[in-house]
Amino acid sequence: MVGKISSDLPPGFRFHPTDEELIMYYLRYQATSRPCPVSIIPEIDVYKFDPWELPDKAEFGENEWYFFTPRDRKYPNGVRPNRAAVSGYWKATGTDKAIYSANKYVGIKKALVFYKGKPPKGVKTD
Amino acid sequence: MVGKISSDLPPGFRFHPTDEELIMYYLRYQATSRPCPVSIIPEIDVYKFDPWELPDKAEFGENEWYFFTPRDRKYPNGVRPNRAAVSGYWKATGTDKAIYSANKYVGIKKALVFYKGKPPKGVKTD
Repeated sequence: MVGKISSDLPPGFRFHPTDEELIMYYLRYQATSRPCPVSIIPEIDVYKFDPWELPDKAEFGENEWYFFTPRDRKYPNGVRPNRAAVSGYWKATGTDKAIYSANKYVGIKKALVFYKGKPPKGVKTD
Repeated sequence: MVGKISSDLPPGFRFHPTDEELIMYYLRYQATSRPCPVSIIPEIDVYKFDPWELPDKAEFGENEWYFFTPRDRKYPNGVRPNRAAVSGYWKATGTDKAIYSANKYVGIKKALVFYKGKPPKGVKTD
C-alpha cells in the first residue's frame, strides 16, 4: 500500500466498498485522524463544486465516487445543515438507511438529490 | 503485484472485472502463456468439482468466482463439449452474449446452469 493504488492494481479490481466498510474502516480512521497510507477517499468540500465536477476529484470510482466532506450549518446556532452548492443545492430524499456492524447500529446512510437553482424553486436533477 | 493481492488490498476493493477485461487481459494472457505475476484467475477443471465446491478454489470473489477451465469433448471427433461434472452436468441456457472491445467482436459469453443427476432427467438447480 504505497503511492497510487490504482496504477498498481491489475485490471478488474474496483473500489466497491460496503456501507459497513465505509463506516467501520474509512470513516472511523478519518474521524480518529489515524494515518492512512494513501488517500483512497479524499476529503474535499463537496458543496464548493457542482456535482458534475466531483468525479474528477476522486482517484477511485466509475459510477460511484467517495468523499469526506465537512458539514456546514444553515444558522450559527441551529442544527439544520447547509447544503447549498455552486449552482444549486442538495436535498434529502427517500428514507435514511441504518447501517449495522456485528449487529450494532453504527451509522446512517442518507440520500441527497441535487436541485439546480435556488430553493424552493430549484429543479430536481438525476 | 507480488504474492497475495487480497491481503495487500485495503477494505472495499473487489475483483469485479468487466467481460472485456476478462477477455482482453486475463484470457489473452492465459491463452498466450504470458507470465502473470499472481494467479488472480486460477486454472482448474471445474468439471471435476460440484458447483458448491468451487468458491473455495478461488482466491477472489464473493458472489462471483472466476476460473479458467479446459474444454472436453463429448465424442472424440465431435465438436460438442462434454460438460458432465461430479454429481450432475452443466447445460447452456439463455442467449449467448457477444463481447466487444473497441468496436471489435472479441468473444462470447455463455451462461450454463447446473443440473443434478444424469441427462436427460437431471434436476435444474439455482
